[in-house]
Amino acid sequence: MKTTAAIGIPKLFSCQFEGKLLDAFPFEQGYTPASAEAYIDFVKQELAPQIVNVAHPRYIGHMTGPVPPLMHELHGCMALFNQNLVKLETSGIATHIEREVIGELHRIFFQKGEEFYKYYTPDPDHCLGNITSGGTLSNITALSYALSKKLSNPEDPSASINNIGLLKSMVNKGYTDIVVLGTAHSHYSMNKAMRLLGLGYQSFIKIDPAILKSAEGRGMLSGMMENYKKAGTLVLALIGVAGTTEAGIIDPLEMMAEVAAEHDVHFHVDAAFGGAFMFSDKLADKLQGITQADSITLCGHKQLYLPMGISVCLFKSPELAGYSEINSHYQARKGGIDLGKYTIEGSRPFSAFIIHGVLRLIGKEGYAEILESNHDRARYFGELVAAHGSFELYNTPELNIVLYRYVPTWLRTRVKKGTLSKTEQQELNRLNVIIQKRQFDKGSSFVSYTEIPDASGSGERVVWLRAVLMNPYTSPQDLQEILQEQETIAAAVIL
Amino acid sequence: MKTTAAIGIPKLFSCQFEGKLLDAFPFEQGYTPASAEAYIDFVKQELAPQIVNVAHPRYIGHMTGPVPPLMHELHGCMALFNQNLVKLETSGIATHIEREVIGELHRIFFQKGEEFYKYYTPDPDHCLGNITSGGTLSNITALSYALSKKLSNPEDPSASINNIGLLKSMVNKGYTDIVVLGTAHSHYSMNKAMRLLGLGYQSFIKIDPAILKSAEGRGMLSGMMENYKKAGTLVLALIGVAGTTEAGIIDPLEMMAEVAAEHDVHFHVDAAFGGAFMFSDKLADKLQGITQADSITLCGHKQLYLPMGISVCLFKSPELAGYSEINSHYQARKGGIDLGKYTIEGSRPFSAFIIHGVLRLIGKEGYAEILESNHDRARYFGELVAAHGSFELYNTPELNIVLYRYVPTWLRTRVKKGTLSKTEQQELNRLNVIIQKRQFDKGSSFVSYTEIPDASGSGERVVWLRAVLMNPYTSPQDLQEILQEQETIAAAVIL
Repeated sequence: MKTTAAIGIPKLFSCQFEGKLLDAFPFEQGYTPASAEAYIDFVKQELAPQIVNVAHPRYIGHMTGPVPPLMHELHGCMALFNQNLVKLETSGIATHIEREVIGELHRIFFQKGEEFYKYYTPDPDHCLGNITSGGTLSNITALSYALSKKLSNPEDPSASINNIGLLKSMVNKGYTDIVVLGTAHSHYSMNKAMRLLGLGYQSFIKIDPAILKSAEGRGMLSGMMENYKKAGTLVLALIGVAGTTEAGIIDPLEMMAEVAAEHDVHFHVDAAFGGAFMFSDKLADKLQGITQADSITLCGHKQLYLPMGISVCLFKSPELAGYSEINSHYQARKGGIDLGKYTIEGSRPFSAFIIHGVLRLIGKEGYAEILESNHDRARYFGELVAAHGSFELYNTPELNIVLYRYVPTWLRTRVKKGTLSKTEQQELNRLNVIIQKRQFDKGSSFVSYTEIPDASGSGERVVWLRAVLMNPYTSPQDLQEILQEQETIAAAVIL
Repeated sequence: MKTTAAIGIPKLFSCQFEGKLLDAFPFEQGYTPASAEAYIDFVKQELAPQIVNVAHPRYIGHMTGPVPPLMHELHGCMALFNQNLVKLETSGIATHIEREVIGELHRIFFQKGEEFYKYYTPDPDHCLGNITSGGTLSNITALSYALSKKLSNPEDPSASINNIGLLKSMVNKGYTDIVVLGTAHSHYSMNKAMRLLGLGYQSFIKIDPAILKSAEGRGMLSGMMENYKKAGTLVLALIGVAGTTEAGIIDPLEMMAEVAAEHDVHFHVDAAFGGAFMFSDKLADKLQGITQADSITLCGHKQLYLPMGISVCLFKSPELAGYSEINSHYQARKGGIDLGKYTIEGSRPFSAFIIHGVLRLIGKEGYAEILESNHDRARYFGELVAAHGSFELYNTPELNIVLYRYVPTWLRTRVKKGTLSKTEQQELNRLNVIIQKRQFDKGSSFVSYTEIPDASGSGERVVWLRAVLMNPYTSPQDLQEILQEQETIAAAVIL
């Protein structure tokens, strides 16, 4: 046997920095290795200057924004706690805090009564939602759990899809095909979900969002569901988006919820970006109908300003996750409180701590203030673009994403009349891509771009500059100067 | 239009704490809200005392250990950088650092030459691995990408499984069924993967690990693959485990790799726990054959001591991820460097920063020291248990997980002779479960338990206490006292 001295504590393991909350940690502190200072230098001098400054007020290109500086401490603290939410034995009170936080978010979206939360929030045999590492995983979770439910077999669990797989399960249930309905502007994570679940991209049916929103929307949607049913095809789910990634558009959630319910179709709302507007009593109306969803994706790292890697999938029914419960012999056992039995992920960080913290430090009111200012900022920028002769506005922003494009003098009339030739359209696309890229390369401002099908239905794609107004530090002057810079770049490109 | 003053910066957004690296951040600092102090108090006085102290030297029950205190700063820093690795426009140098880090890990496991890494590490059209949020997701990634490759259709991508789904793809290729081969001690995340991919739990074929390791192992495995093929069943993958969750056992990786290669079956090694032993030149031999794997899961939050939520799935072939490439119009475009096109997850944190940091601050040598001491610690504990009259050792630990059980005086002879009756066996199980639970409840030490099928093949399950020796602070004296406490508890239970 080795003696105590021979085993010892490896010195390199215990090197440390300082932190304000460190004395909350119950374990010994070690020493600072010589190389730590060198690494700090690397971070300060090489790394930090070359990351993308997503916190900059003129970085308005993506759904990645600044995080409040308190995240440094909360996140660092989470790291040192190092709780693993897969089970109680590695998480203790953290498991209860995760349930509490999910209950609080569930209440904001589904607005059930006090008794509901009193019973279901802590109940080991029920689950109101999953904290996941991202929106894609939240969307995958929703579709996967809906599928497990739809192709479950309560009389004989050994004949459920979970056990026998998709193919045999479809044969047993008599389905010839399975589709998911969404719109052409659904997030591309739906493709990832369709691939993973074995359904395939082509079974994600993309409805024209404009028709869906029109007076014919309800009839069309209902008719589609009817026809699929007649053909022996299972309509697994209908996907609504609350704040599309490309343009921040909100699908007609209420109508979709009603039609889905009529046809017993799972209604999932991808509110990864827009869901945060539920925190504002003034703006929550924009998401009318979301309360009727069967499941909702909300990303903490979007408009809750949490650090990257924190998302939630909320389930209206506390029973849904039960259809996908998985147990093992050493944890997540049947009947236990361990959260691991209800999540796709296994070991998971104590992200609930960050959500718990911001709900108390920023709070619903704090978020309302931020979200309302984002909305104001987008309206302001939309008006600025519309009033500016050199730019065309795509539409009045519904939330806080503004699409627009630069139009050179000689094309302005034809743009207004909608009489651009195909060649001119392509030229305009190229010009806007160049403007976007040059501005990014210059590095003082950043707007992204996207491509959206031409409104005429010609199949042509139109490039639009895309501004996501979610940085609380972005001022009207920043926005004016961003446009100015784009105009200057355009002038240089045209010359 | 609103004026500058009317939009402003919401005050609640910009509250902050302090941190040593904060001045590396390019954005403005805000103020500390009144409630921050109250929340710090809550963390110190209520939360911290009630989490599970996974860093305690006598917390040896799970694969969740202490993290070096430097994680507080690195993790906090990652949070404030808030880079999103889905694309270059939200990550800049972080995308390149992620590729660098994956290349470094790939080299440790697959040991390709300098030219290989020079070309493939930075190449936008290839991918050597994914950084994921956990081992389950890494395992899912490996199986999903293997499936996309196996059922791809290079001549007509529109007829690939990604597009047409599992059912139609199987029909096209003429497969009647798909199975994955593993052993009875594979991690339960394989069930999650089988469910997600539409294959079902029952298509995960569990080989007896003892037979696999025996002289008949190779013949049996090869015969199985042959028979499945004859029956029109696709053997998608073979799963080897390097350090099983329950007992730290290593499958015969080399033989498995050879048989898989002969039958053109994807060989995935789940080295979530044991993979870190590759950092030690002394102990790497234990994983003989891992270099021939097609993909490998390694969890940073296990024996690399990173905070929860950092795992890697490494791909031997730089082409594998290409079969699952997904693009969109606003990011992860074809031909671009954006990592999002090759990952199941979308938005992802800059976890590569943490790995980058520890590879420089702790380094391969530092990890070797830690891993070797873990191995010593397990050998020591195994010897301690074996020499102790009141306990039975399950087997000589291969890595650093030790299984054992308490045996009361009157059953010791029958345990040694292997003549326990079914009732006595169940009584012994119950006793050990009680000991484990009481020790957890007392709160000064923690060992977990698991259930493993009886070696006789009777189908009976045996409860074993399970010690994971991965805490560098655990001393021989801690281990002695843990056993002592269990004996004391047992005595009280028996009385």
